[in-house]
Amino acid sequence: MKRLINDGYDVVEELLEGYCLAHSDYVELKQDCNRVIVSKKMSSEPRVRIIVGGGSGHEPAFLGYVGKDFADAAAVGNVNTSPSPEYCYAAVKAVDAGKGCLFVYGNYAGDVMNFDMAAELAAEEGIRVETVTTTDDIYSSENVQDRRGVAGNVFVFKVAGSAAAKGYDLDKVKALTQKANANTYSIGVALSSSTLPVTGEPIFEMQDGDMEVGMGIHGEPGIERTKLEKADVVVSQLIDHILADSKLKSGDEIELLINGLGGLALMDQYICYRKAHLLLAEKGIKIYKSLVGNYVTSMDMVGMSISVIKLDQELKQLLDHPCDAPYFKVAY
Amino acid sequence: MKRLINDGYDVVEELLEGYCLAHSDYVELKQDCNRVIVSKKMSSEPRVRIIVGGGSGHEPAFLGYVGKDFADAAAVGNVNTSPSPEYCYAAVKAVDAGKGCLFVYGNYAGDVMNFDMAAELAAEEGIRVETVTTTDDIYSSENVQDRRGVAGNVFVFKVAGSAAAKGYDLDKVKALTQKANANTYSIGVALSSSTLPVTGEPIFEMQDGDMEVGMGIHGEPGIERTKLEKADVVVSQLIDHILADSKLKSGDEIELLINGLGGLALMDQYICYRKAHLLLAEKGIKIYKSLVGNYVTSMDMVGMSISVIKLDQELKQLLDHPCDAPYFKVAY
Repeated sequence: MKRLINDGYDVVEELLEGYCLAHSDYVELKQDCNRVIVSKKMSSEPRVRIIVGGGSGHEPAFLGYVGKDFADAAAVGNVNTSPSPEYCYAAVKAVDAGKGCLFVYGNYAGDVMNFDMAAELAAEEGIRVETVTTTDDIYSSENVQDRRGVAGNVFVFKVAGSAAAKGYDLDKVKALTQKANANTYSIGVALSSSTLPVTGEPIFEMQDGDMEVGMGIHGEPGIERTKLEKADVVVSQLIDHILADSKLKSGDEIELLINGLGGLALMDQYICYRKAHLLLAEKGIKIYKSLVGNYVTSMDMVGMSISVIKLDQELKQLLDHPCDAPYFKVAY
Repeated sequence: MKRLINDGYDVVEELLEGYCLAHSDYVELKQDCNRVIVSKKMSSEPRVRIIVGGGSGHEPAFLGYVGKDFADAAAVGNVNTSPSPEYCYAAVKAVDAGKGCLFVYGNYAGDVMNFDMAAELAAEEGIRVETVTTTDDIYSSENVQDRRGVAGNVFVFKVAGSAAAKGYDLDKVKALTQKANANTYSIGVALSSSTLPVTGEPIFEMQDGDMEVGMGIHGEPGIERTKLEKADVVVSQLIDHILADSKLKSGDEIELLINGLGGLALMDQYICYRKAHLLLAEKGIKIYKSLVGNYVTSMDMVGMSISVIKLDQELKQLLDHPCDAPYFKVAY
């Protein structure tokens, strides 16, 4: 095992305690609920509140996106496990300002069940909560609504946070967030499993020198296990999948994210970025802005994913709206 | 090998091309010298220019710290290899504005030789170049002036960039940068070697489940190879070394950096941060601000380092001065 942890059962509490100590100017744990991270930079205006969340092990997702004019709270589950309905509900109670809340999280069965129960609990108290589940992982299903959410989350969260920051009502914030999700496409490749803290073992075995295109961020199976190819070959495969699924064409404008899964050298991420950029530019696709780095990880998994969001003027303005969270800053 | 690269001999050129494409609003490659990254956000006022640099494989160092009111250029060497004197000199020629330049880089024999030669070449043209070599790695030598520079570089670079941004002259910028370096203490622990791109092999063998306290960012030997301990035990050892060397005492104020070496999960970095914070707080040391993440890496090495900079009012103001580089932002 190459993890630097204490008891594997304590990782989430210690992560959250450490995170809130390190970023005490941005966030705090909700009183009486140590699995809800709340922004200290929440607007004093009553606005729609954005609540993100999911299992731990994807840091800086989801807690790293709680801050000013971005997400207002995150509900945090155990490693690769949904937060309980109580946590999701506690997040609503912590931040609701009478304008309703939007849950934005990855489309996984456990998360859907728990966040939905929390929304019902809130409704019983007269708090309106709407939901957008992210479905950007193009390999995870042929049916878009059945797809999982992966690193493209970041674009969707950003649009939700900006829409709320602009003071839009809940229906409009939800519609814009749905639009962002519908325009976002991701696919990943893994070179190794992550290591589970409790067992100290990988989730699955993977030979050194193998790779698996299409694998999910919890180790969900990909297309096939093959020998590791050169970066340019792998990136070309991923871009081909994205182009086929997204129907992006010459003249379209996108934002591009190369996301490290936790254990991949940043050098490699930029080498992958280079090829993705060149391939898209060859097709006449305009790259408006780019993100490179570890945005949604799988702990120590070696691998990366490529995400694109197809832009129009409305989405560009929302993505460019100022915000200030520990892991996402757009200058004011 | 768990690297996603093309030909191992091409990694630096492809990294730089990818980096400049991804961050084209911040930086560009110097014309006619594809190993010098120059800020596009350099002040139009003639100020002292800050030039950082060193071998590749430490991304986001050094190029990630080139931006507005931070470093003005980076000279980039091959993996774990100093940039040539020509590159260092080209960086001076690219940015000097008549107020002189400050080289700030880690104290390694190859870097010292090459940057010094470049400073001599510049002097022959009447351009004054001064140098501060960083020496924060407390385990690397008993003699402070012989120590290597590691992740504490970030604090030193930041102070240099802020001092130049304030319009101070070269003597004052140098003196403040020296002061920052003298107040900075780092020590690391490795759980694995990095993988060299050209060979696809680790620099040294390390058994799974072993660790080495004191190891340098190029794999320089540490204190001893031992069985991996729990995070809290490892962090306590590192903090003990820092306290013994720095003579920090109750009432002192610091900024604290937990730096991931490239392959360590961010979850683990926050678990380590938690313990470091608690141990320092127990000693009555005040933590003014904190940084957690991959700031100076060793490609895919699994491990982390702890750095502290002892603060006074002057250093606090310099560390808090606004700047905007892809990997370091302080709000304006």
